[in-house]
Amino acid sequence: MKVYIEPIGRLINEFSKLPGVGTKTAQRFAYKVINMTPDEAKAFSDAILNAKNNVRYCKICGNFSEGDVCDVCKSRSNDTICVVKEPKDVIAIEKLNEYNGVYHVLHGTISPLDGIGPNDINIKELLARISQGGVNEVIMATNPDVEGEATAMYISNLLKPLGIKVSRLAHGIPIGTDLEYADEVSLARAFIDRKTL
Amino acid sequence: MKVYIEPIGRLINEFSKLPGVGTKTAQRFAYKVINMTPDEAKAFSDAILNAKNNVRYCKICGNFSEGDVCDVCKSRSNDTICVVKEPKDVIAIEKLNEYNGVYHVLHGTISPLDGIGPNDINIKELLARISQGGVNEVIMATNPDVEGEATAMYISNLLKPLGIKVSRLAHGIPIGTDLEYADEVSLARAFIDRKTL
Repeated sequence: MKVYIEPIGRLINEFSKLPGVGTKTAQRFAYKVINMTPDEAKAFSDAILNAKNNVRYCKICGNFSEGDVCDVCKSRSNDTICVVKEPKDVIAIEKLNEYNGVYHVLHGTISPLDGIGPNDINIKELLARISQGGVNEVIMATNPDVEGEATAMYISNLLKPLGIKVSRLAHGIPIGTDLEYADEVSLARAFIDRKTL
Repeated sequence: MKVYIEPIGRLINEFSKLPGVGTKTAQRFAYKVINMTPDEAKAFSDAILNAKNNVRYCKICGNFSEGDVCDVCKSRSNDTICVVKEPKDVIAIEKLNEYNGVYHVLHGTISPLDGIGPNDINIKELLARISQGGVNEVIMATNPDVEGEATAMYISNLLKPLGIKVSRLAHGIPIGTDLEYADEVSLARAFIDRKTL
């Protein structure tokens, strides 16, 4: 006989599709749902559909948005544009409460090995925004990995001839790390990018 | 401004209610949902409601069931009853394909510190089943912790006067463990319960 009854097996299967969730964890999640009140289960179920149906991408910056244009694009000056790989990077930066400019979400980085070229990510949309004027600085905040660096260099080479200041987030040893435990690449970068006091 | 737009914030909040899921993980799950196709999101959402609405407890053994009586109770002899704490223990045992009897799910174990006494778990239902006759052996498969042992002893003391054979799952060193790494309690139990060859 089958181990799970159909409704449980089906729910476990759905939970297993979430990133990093194996069968054991999916099973625990399913038990949790079964032990919820009907209202709680309804709220959970509704939240999934609601997020799927009501989250769009801002037609200006490509970030998550409820309307056509996101709150950031609506309310801030486009003097400075911070270029990121994914919408979740916007959230990471917004949490800092440090940055007051707008964003541009590339939805990927250039990665020839994966068949992703410059035309597969939102680079031309960035150029179109800049061509409308008013942009003084573009901060390249793609990840410090091979694809992120390559994408930053590529965009930087496109923008510099236009007389736009292009900057890159600083790399170095993270605050609070002991020198002896810092990874070698970051430590090497910290030497190269050392600042005069 | 708020970091998450409302539909995403709400979904992250729902995912955070799952066991062992913090904000970061809930955020990853939410992104996954947003990147699903509408059909996938609908299937996920439906599976939650379906599991909540269609999973009941078998009125005989207390295990998960789609109907009033579960498939195990419908199809097997009640010659042997295996007593477990929770429905998920039934699944763990069913996966072995070793046991062919029926189950009885207590939905808890006696735990005076948590205010759970013998009347708060399905012990009287077990006694009622046994009083209907036909039961030869009751296997106590509660967890090998203080509450599980206490519950096993309590039920055993109730059943022995009725002339029912009561057994307990064997404890000892797990298969594949090196003696030097076995935990002390299990190793001590392995000595006490040693078998004549």
